[in-house]
Amino acid sequence: MHVRAFTEEMERLAPPELAEDFDAGRIGLIVEGKTTIKTICCALDATPSVVKRAVAGHADMLLVHHTPLWTPLTSLTGPTAALMRDVLASGLNLYVMHTNFDHAECGVNDALAELLALETSEPLSLGIVGDCTLTLKEIGRRLDCPLRVWGKIKKPGRLAVVGGSGFDPVFMAEAKERGADAFLSAELKHSVYRAAPLPCIEATHYALEAPAMKRLAAQKGWRFIADPPVLHSVP
Amino acid sequence: MHVRAFTEEMERLAPPELAEDFDAGRIGLIVEGKTTIKTICCALDATPSVVKRAVAGHADMLLVHHTPLWTPLTSLTGPTAALMRDVLASGLNLYVMHTNFDHAECGVNDALAELLALETSEPLSLGIVGDCTLTLKEIGRRLDCPLRVWGKIKKPGRLAVVGGSGFDPVFMAEAKERGADAFLSAELKHSVYRAAPLPCIEATHYALEAPAMKRLAAQKGWRFIADPPVLHSVP
Amino acid sequence: MHVRAFTEEMERLAPPELAEDFDAGRIGLIVEGKTTIKTICCALDATPSVVKRAVAGHADMLLVHHTPLWTPLTSLTGPTAALMRDVLASGLNLYVMHTNFDHAECGVNDALAELLALETSEPLSLGIVGDCTLTLKEIGRRLDCPLRVWGKIKKPGRLAVVGGSGFDPVFMAEAKERGADAFLSAELKHSVYRAAPLPCIEATHYALEAPAMKRLAAQKGWRFIADPPVLHSVP
Amino acid sequence: MHVRAFTEEMERLAPPELAEDFDAGRIGLIVEGKTTIKTICCALDATPSVVKRAVAGHADMLLVHHTPLWTPLTSLTGPTAALMRDVLASGLNLYVMHTNFDHAECGVNDALAELLALETSEPLSLGIVGDCTLTLKEIGRRLDCPLRVWGKIKKPGRLAVVGGSGFDPVFMAEAKERGADAFLSAELKHSVYRAAPLPCIEATHYALEAPAMKRLAAQKGWRFIADPPVLHSVP
Amino acid sequence: MHVRAFTEEMERLAPPELAEDFDAGRIGLIVEGKTTIKTICCALDATPSVVKRAVAGHADMLLVHHTPLWTPLTSLTGPTAALMRDVLASGLNLYVMHTNFDHAECGVNDALAELLALETSEPLSLGIVGDCTLTLKEIGRRLDCPLRVWGKIKKPGRLAVVGGSGFDPVFMAEAKERGADAFLSAELKHSVYRAAPLPCIEATHYALEAPAMKRLAAQKGWRFIADPPVLHSVP
Amino acid sequence: MHVRAFTEEMERLAPPELAEDFDAGRIGLIVEGKTTIKTICCALDATPSVVKRAVAGHADMLLVHHTPLWTPLTSLTGPTAALMRDVLASGLNLYVMHTNFDHAECGVNDALAELLALETSEPLSLGIVGDCTLTLKEIGRRLDCPLRVWGKIKKPGRLAVVGGSGFDPVFMAEAKERGADAFLSAELKHSVYRAAPLPCIEATHYALEAPAMKRLAAQKGWRFIADPPVLHSVP
Repeated sequence: MHVRAFTEEMERLAPPELAEDFDAGRIGLIVEGKTTIKTICCALDATPSVVKRAVAGHADMLLVHHTPLWTPLTSLTGPTAALMRDVLASGLNLYVMHTNFDHAECGVNDALAELLALETSEPLSLGIVGDCTLTLKEIGRRLDCPLRVWGKIKKPGRLAVVGGSGFDPVFMAEAKERGADAFLSAELKHSVYRAAPLPCIEATHYALEAPAMKRLAAQKGWRFIADPPVLHSVP
Repeated sequence: MHVRAFTEEMERLAPPELAEDFDAGRIGLIVEGKTTIKTICCALDATPSVVKRAVAGHADMLLVHHTPLWTPLTSLTGPTAALMRDVLASGLNLYVMHTNFDHAECGVNDALAELLALETSEPLSLGIVGDCTLTLKEIGRRLDCPLRVWGKIKKPGRLAVVGGSGFDPVFMAEAKERGADAFLSAELKHSVYRAAPLPCIEATHYALEAPAMKRLAAQKGWRFIADPPVLHSVP
Repeated sequence: MHVRAFTEEMERLAPPELAEDFDAGRIGLIVEGKTTIKTICCALDATPSVVKRAVAGHADMLLVHHTPLWTPLTSLTGPTAALMRDVLASGLNLYVMHTNFDHAECGVNDALAELLALETSEPLSLGIVGDCTLTLKEIGRRLDCPLRVWGKIKKPGRLAVVGGSGFDPVFMAEAKERGADAFLSAELKHSVYRAAPLPCIEATHYALEAPAMKRLAAQKGWRFIADPPVLHSVP
Repeated sequence: MHVRAFTEEMERLAPPELAEDFDAGRIGLIVEGKTTIKTICCALDATPSVVKRAVAGHADMLLVHHTPLWTPLTSLTGPTAALMRDVLASGLNLYVMHTNFDHAECGVNDALAELLALETSEPLSLGIVGDCTLTLKEIGRRLDCPLRVWGKIKKPGRLAVVGGSGFDPVFMAEAKERGADAFLSAELKHSVYRAAPLPCIEATHYALEAPAMKRLAAQKGWRFIADPPVLHSVP
Repeated sequence: MHVRAFTEEMERLAPPELAEDFDAGRIGLIVEGKTTIKTICCALDATPSVVKRAVAGHADMLLVHHTPLWTPLTSLTGPTAALMRDVLASGLNLYVMHTNFDHAECGVNDALAELLALETSEPLSLGIVGDCTLTLKEIGRRLDCPLRVWGKIKKPGRLAVVGGSGFDPVFMAEAKERGADAFLSAELKHSVYRAAPLPCIEATHYALEAPAMKRLAAQKGWRFIADPPVLHSVP
Repeated sequence: MHVRAFTEEMERLAPPELAEDFDAGRIGLIVEGKTTIKTICCALDATPSVVKRAVAGHADMLLVHHTPLWTPLTSLTGPTAALMRDVLASGLNLYVMHTNFDHAECGVNDALAELLALETSEPLSLGIVGDCTLTLKEIGRRLDCPLRVWGKIKKPGRLAVVGGSGFDPVFMAEAKERGADAFLSAELKHSVYRAAPLPCIEATHYALEAPAMKRLAAQKGWRFIADPPVLHSVP
């Protein structure tokens, strides 16, 4: 498969024009390697460990959600130089789908809704709201991460879910208006909690976004390379 | 006590010139009430509940760490109107010490170091690093909040602590260089964790900053009004 | 009457989308008080005296042309704190119509044209031009303020009128082109006078804008609260 | 006299470094004409009439307070082209002293203080405050312009004076603090009057600034070319 | 001919709306002289020598490609004062057609294509590409300037031409894609050459843009005033 | 030799604090390779050809004047990916000295002065001025590039030299004032030539800056890798 064919397929899946402005220049084929692609891997982040495992597996293409080149560079030093050496020397291509995948049908939030078995769901500006019959414990189990629950909830009931760092007052107000009983996302700030119009369930960024990459890999027959945070709760 | 005398005392405690630039116009006497002050309360945030309890207790002055007027206003509506009505109608003064108190001697980080019994401690650009003999469980107990522990730690050992939202790559690099084994703060982002040079212990913003306000109240004989987040971990 | 009903009525009268960009966030219901409105007052400015008279008259709503919260606030101190205390403590609502009322049909300039009996009038980009048979003395009498007359005029003839601070070179050039013999507004600057294409009649800002508020009060059966500048000419 | 000698003399009188930042590039020798200077004229503004009279009088240098080239130009058309044609074709030099002259000893405000016979005067950040025994009528007569008096004043008493457009809340607060009973300047805005801490006497910009140019001309033996606004009060 | 008639004719020839944004305020009638126009001259730049020759020839209008008032002015001194004195004192009008003429049909690049006898030519975003059968030596002769040839070329073959300073990587990539063998323009920078996708022929800015002005003069029966750089190659 | 030792030596030679602000983040060790350095090469630009020859020669360090990573990158594609692959895969370090070397003693302009045998020379803000007894032909021969001579010069006489793109009106005025008869640099723009206060000799950017790198290589016993533009004059 020519790299151009892969790129075109991904652009159908997650059209670049769906991306937020801040992603300009940070999505698509961000490191150019071999032109012919046989083995494709998929992960949430291009961490050193993920890249080493992709290279060891003779991958020609690594598809990730988060670019490793976020901050514009005028030098290649330290960990970035080491990472880019591994990528470039092996001819590995790096392809990024970020907010275009968040907004895509069958994207990040859709995978989350499926994983949490949301019913009679409807889309929000960002994310999805639907009825959730799972217990909090079961939600944590399916996401495979400890949860922090802010406010009083017994069962989630009608649940708004937003992959990644989605605790934004605007989205939370919308979810409340659309009947949500709780809001599930990651990285809740103190000031946002103080004005939150509904209880918040805080998972990790990884736990909320990895499922979409994993599901895509399964659908396409690619290898998913997991690299979750090492995390536990006390107590 | 005249309000001016109170203001002068607070400015000695947490000099305004220690504040970050973004705090310009957001610290000091931010709501002007009665000129004569008898009863002083103290809290982390001027939440509706805190203000109501202060007013019910006939307070003339409420000292807080976080201003309720962060975003510049050209109108007073919704919750802000309700809060300001309670404050203004009762003649309550509102005084804010924010990053000036973070940077002050005997300020936010100093109270934290005391609470966690740090030894042979030394100051960082922001925060403090010192030896901690407590278990993680005991740290959580003293802070009175569940912890999220990122990375492999048995005991904290030499611990860097930064009150509030302090997981900043620059501060973390400094802590690592100064011999820290772990970094305790709040609101850790995924991208920061991915590049973290040492394990991270994540408490809540409230748990890390309230102790300083509580200690100050105890020292001065004021009433501390607690209003912690309603939070529990799953599992 | 519910405050929402009042707001909707005002938005029909002076649609917010007619306002200049600089009025964003500074018009409409800028202080939220009681939800049920019985007594409505109307004035040009929400001065301390106007607010005290409105409160004394048990008003629930005060409609003004100029917002008292022009400069964005991160604190409430001094005269602003005193004013907002009076407003909030009494549950008085404050509603502002500014450049949207200037541009509205039946707005500021229309009231002025009626007061000065302009005939065969036509609209300008801002303001109105029409034939005026009054003497300068009679114009001053009707506006109830001393005038400063810049340049040689006997009778106004065809007169351009712009409420408020309207001596803008662009509007003045337009008035001249449309056949005006003189231009009536307030707050003429030296440099604008130096390049003025036609004689200028300078009244006060208050004298030119209060008539519209007064007329509106009369039409609606509200109470108009006058608070003109204390002003006299020498010699 | 060489033009350079004139320039040096003026720079001693009103050092360019005293000027406000907005005057950068707008003071000093702003139109370069003949190198040898015999006849010098002086005026407040380089109006067409002033320039024609200067040229008719064979002037080589015209010293003014306000530059005719305020707005940066990329073309010379209309009145500016006509003015510059008169200036350049006759070899007339144009020299501007603006805020550097306002701030200079013996400058704009000093001349005003002398004209109004202020006693036991002291400097303000901008302007001068001193005791004034003149009646308002006599002040108007000496300034040769009608006055608008805002607020209740019988006699000026201790009077703050600021040449030009000086009704600035910061300066007015300072004047009040320094014991002023009234504030004399030009171009008072409605919103400034509303918050004015002391009564205001409004003359014209010309009447307040021309005296300094006239006095300078008298001291140096130059010709002063008057061009006051055509202005009268009604009633 | 009234100056307005001339202006209208030029606006048909090179419509102002074709100009780049940076030309706003820098094209059209930039110095206003006599209203009646009899004698018209034309040149690339309004140099002192060109203006003196135009004035000596009793020209009423000088049409140029480059404005002499590029940098916005708040003073008229040195060479600019001298030039404007010559222009204004003689009543000479100055009219500028810049990027609007570059983009116009029959404009700068069209004249260049004609001079170099390009065949089967087609327009580029900026410039023209066509087959050129001339030798490099003959191109230099027709342009009347020495050439610098960067890269290996025998004959130009299919040649992209862009008048003025046109070595822009975007235009060069487009030319390459459209089949160009070489790119002719002026003012090639080192960094652009290093990444150039095709050989570059560097003439002078004057040599590439003067032909259009000269051709226009010939068509209209105006006088063209030449003022080429004094330039020779070593060796 | 450890890479840190090399870096320190270069920082003594061309201190980073001498660099212009626009070089921030673009000088020093901009690509990090092997830690131990045995073979050092030196060139003006890190072109593909230069890098390939450096790698073929087993270089560990390539010192250049111009960074290949000027534009901040959020992706590595096309020629940049190819270049970085060659650099990173071989462990080659890339070190840049740019405007810090221009301003350094024994830097770019000093090498130029030596090559052209300038006598009784003195430094300019940028560049050097000195007496030059060479013919123009000999200057071209020593620089090894064709020259374009703008204006009338027989012999250079007192010559100002500025390596790189140095035809800046400010520097040219300074050179003229300091007695220069001609100004030698690269990349002369039309508008600068039009206002040039002295004749200009235009070489290539490469010809003016490569000598300093070559001389440094000779002094240090490193290999200099030449890669001059392919350039000839017509006629």
